[in-house]
Amino acid sequence: MRLKDVGEVNIIDSIRQRSRYLNDVVIPIGDDTAAVPWKKGWLQLLTTDILVEGVHFLWEQINMKDLGYKSMAVNLSDIAAMGGIPRYALVSLGLPEDLKTSELRDFYDGMYELANTYCVDIVGGDVTTSPIIIINIALTGEVESHLVLRQNQARAGDLIAVTGELGGSAAGLALLLNPQLSLPLEVRDRVLALHNRPHPRVHQGRLFARSRIVTTAKDISDGLSKEILAIARSSHQGAVIWANRIPILQETREVAARLNINPLNLAINGGEDYELLFTFSPANLNQLQFIASQENISFTVVGEIVPEDLGHHIVDSNGIQHPLEAKGYNHFQGV
Amino acid sequence: MRLKDVGEVNIIDSIRQRSRYLNDVVIPIGDDTAAVPWKKGWLQLLTTDILVEGVHFLWEQINMKDLGYKSMAVNLSDIAAMGGIPRYALVSLGLPEDLKTSELRDFYDGMYELANTYCVDIVGGDVTTSPIIIINIALTGEVESHLVLRQNQARAGDLIAVTGELGGSAAGLALLLNPQLSLPLEVRDRVLALHNRPHPRVHQGRLFARSRIVTTAKDISDGLSKEILAIARSSHQGAVIWANRIPILQETREVAARLNINPLNLAINGGEDYELLFTFSPANLNQLQFIASQENISFTVVGEIVPEDLGHHIVDSNGIQHPLEAKGYNHFQGV
Repeated sequence: MRLKDVGEVNIIDSIRQRSRYLNDVVIPIGDDTAAVPWKKGWLQLLTTDILVEGVHFLWEQINMKDLGYKSMAVNLSDIAAMGGIPRYALVSLGLPEDLKTSELRDFYDGMYELANTYCVDIVGGDVTTSPIIIINIALTGEVESHLVLRQNQARAGDLIAVTGELGGSAAGLALLLNPQLSLPLEVRDRVLALHNRPHPRVHQGRLFARSRIVTTAKDISDGLSKEILAIARSSHQGAVIWANRIPILQETREVAARLNINPLNLAINGGEDYELLFTFSPANLNQLQFIASQENISFTVVGEIVPEDLGHHIVDSNGIQHPLEAKGYNHFQGV
Repeated sequence: MRLKDVGEVNIIDSIRQRSRYLNDVVIPIGDDTAAVPWKKGWLQLLTTDILVEGVHFLWEQINMKDLGYKSMAVNLSDIAAMGGIPRYALVSLGLPEDLKTSELRDFYDGMYELANTYCVDIVGGDVTTSPIIIINIALTGEVESHLVLRQNQARAGDLIAVTGELGGSAAGLALLLNPQLSLPLEVRDRVLALHNRPHPRVHQGRLFARSRIVTTAKDISDGLSKEILAIARSSHQGAVIWANRIPILQETREVAARLNINPLNLAINGGEDYELLFTFSPANLNQLQFIASQENISFTVVGEIVPEDLGHHIVDSNGIQHPLEAKGYNHFQGV
């Protein structure tokens, strides 16, 4: 049997199942980051992401500065989802020997732009020649043990919410794949920027953790549907999503209209928005809205955690329930 | 200008020069690992290594179990060189979708074999499809702040020593590149094992750190000559190596004889032996020999740190001095 016959989820599951811990591991493989004991009262968060040319990006379609920015952003987003403070990064690069030194400089410019914003230090790494561009960043972070946001603590009745608006990154990708689409320049620029330079929601994650009323959080890297299923399943709960509540970016609607596809698909299955998905008790909605508004943070309630035996559904605008399926990006089995 | 015109050392130098630290970084880019503040009296060590198919290994010439073992070994070796205790690993994999699931299992078997030996937990990672096999491991470790072994603390007069015997891995590589060589099976097996399954010197590193008399250490990943130059230059010292003192593995002599090359070349420029290179005052030689013998550890004095203005030399068996050059493996400029 080959990897393509198995699929990413099952590969990761098989890796997870064989992990036996010899030290104290507070949060093991499966959440947005791992967490291990740190100084008294704190956990260290550990995460890593690999980006491979031809798989995660096309060299012709992203400049090196944006690539550096995005590589750092996807790791920061994982720390954000745990409510953590990012700290130290290790950067491994596989680079074609024909790459220009100015392109490498651009890459570091983009990476440092975001690292500096969040006070992250790049303390080490590895550089090798390679036939294709490879970027691996490992990032540490820290969070108070009693505030860490896990994915498996959702309770039936909790509301499900997302920060910002969804579908921007997927619309940008659709535009890259269909460059002939006629669209206003500002629409193109907006969705391409969201695809190439996503904003990790570090401040939002910290705010939610410190609020003590957010029960779970995840970053939307693989698509809203897949991330909601991850929260619900790991919490042993069901979930209902209301399609007409999902905040779809206006520019995404315009791209979808040109492509003659449902913008909802881009918003719930597209992924790479790097907004935060989170849950909390409806009794705390007003308090959370107040806290968020103080910090100029907007969020939208899109669904509800329900008992496990009610399953996982999305309710369309006609009130009809459909099974919620993980249609996010699946390595080894395509989209 | 392109990366191949610049060379690995200059690329890493340019990356190092632009790093500006916003947090407290005790040991920055340049040593075997970075070190950052941790709980009182301790440092956290952070290191990462990337292995790329076709650059670091050929798929046809290493089995997946050995590849898993070696990937973990090269990271453990960096922690060993700092005198540290390895702790948590993050494993990123780029895998062709045609890879067999049994091969992935073998890879993890090899990785866990070594991880378990040193009580290292694999707490997370990332898996993606990729046209070539890519492995990146990031590893944390810990070491007492006052015991950490840096590369830049060598003093003029210090002796230079290495653990074990050198040239085994390079002989193994030479055999892979010249499979037609007629050699006794036990010679083949020995050098191939040293190439594919190097032993990280974690216990030795700990012992040297705790001895408090070892002044610097590095692991020999890029070749003895290059590593000695790194210690001498970062310590602002010169160095003299005595060629006839270098412990060359007997099997390496046999491979070199068949290839009609000087075995010394394999021992000082070959790299990937993952033995430890270290320095200490000659006044402490007897004490260090006693400590090492108690633990069944052997080492050999191969040279001496000298004042910087005396330069960096290797003395051949006729007593003639030659400049010591970094002929270790240089990514972007070949061997």
